[in-house]
Amino acid sequence: MEPQRRPGGRSARVREAVLDATTVELAERGYQGLNVDAVAQRAGVHKTTVYRRWGGPEGLVADALGRASEQAWPIPDTGTLVGDLRGLTELVRAGFADPESGPVATAFVTAGMQHPAAAAALRGFYAARHEEAAAIVTRAIARGEAEPEVDADEIIRLAIAPLFHRLFITHEPVTAEQARRAADIAATIAGTPPGT
Amino acid sequence: MEPQRRPGGRSARVREAVLDATTVELAERGYQGLNVDAVAQRAGVHKTTVYRRWGGPEGLVADALGRASEQAWPIPDTGTLVGDLRGLTELVRAGFADPESGPVATAFVTAGMQHPAAAAALRGFYAARHEEAAAIVTRAIARGEAEPEVDADEIIRLAIAPLFHRLFITHEPVTAEQARRAADIAATIAGTPPGT
Repeated sequence: MEPQRRPGGRSARVREAVLDATTVELAERGYQGLNVDAVAQRAGVHKTTVYRRWGGPEGLVADALGRASEQAWPIPDTGTLVGDLRGLTELVRAGFADPESGPVATAFVTAGMQHPAAAAALRGFYAARHEEAAAIVTRAIARGEAEPEVDADEIIRLAIAPLFHRLFITHEPVTAEQARRAADIAATIAGTPPGT
Repeated sequence: MEPQRRPGGRSARVREAVLDATTVELAERGYQGLNVDAVAQRAGVHKTTVYRRWGGPEGLVADALGRASEQAWPIPDTGTLVGDLRGLTELVRAGFADPESGPVATAFVTAGMQHPAAAAALRGFYAARHEEAAAIVTRAIARGEAEPEVDADEIIRLAIAPLFHRLFITHEPVTAEQARRAADIAATIAGTPPGT
């Protein structure tokens, strides 16, 4: 019998256990090593449950990203635009460098390069993250630190794109100084946008 | 018998044929579909030749990237910093959007996410590209369009990182307007670097 899908019910508990197991397996083995049998065993559920509900590794990653999108990002609120942007780029740098969260985040990005469903899930995940982080810029506009016509989304992307470019395209480490520098450049552009 | 490795000799011709075949296979099937037997067949060589010299898909991609690094990039020289940077970001945008070169370039980036040898090859490939493109900024400094203390490599990365971020992290298309905008931002920073 199919369990009732009420929040907090058995179905929700199975989802939590399976997505937790997916996260641990991703951290340990990466996306290429993600195996439904291993996830099922770790979650303590039958593998047919996982196949029926998630289909395979791609579905597991997409749902894990969906769950991650629902969790709030600890957006810095330091009182200055440059302070907030530095906090944001440091959050990204430290997140990927962290021995626990780094491999999971890396596996999510790698999965996006390999499967359309994971790519679509990543697009949604980052859209939610950028929307949260845009508060940094809207607060700065309210304080008079950024020009009112500034595109908040563009400033957030400008601050973090150089970090992702190093990590996943040129495969170079990101230093704390480089993260700070990317934030400072984004703050400069928010104060003096081109074409104005 | 091992063929003599003189330039233009049989060994060089085999390399050209195998790397050309690798490029076509990458364009058609992507990195995950890259198969040594198919490459050997397309190149008209025995598969043991490919295995002995390149080891496998990872080695083929690394050598194809090595060959690509040796080819010059058509860096724009329009006479202005903003013109050159706009030309550069458009080169990147159009390259990934092109039905012939786009899938190959995408396969290279994808391979880098999956194998250390491909990641190392990509690092070398982009280091060469950035060094070539840095001429845009050094020419601008000579013309007085950019501050002498500007880090040319940083400006080049700043111009192109937002494009790579959309293509491979958030999985969004890049418009010509977004490419132009990224160039304009980099040009603004070259004229007014933060912390000066």
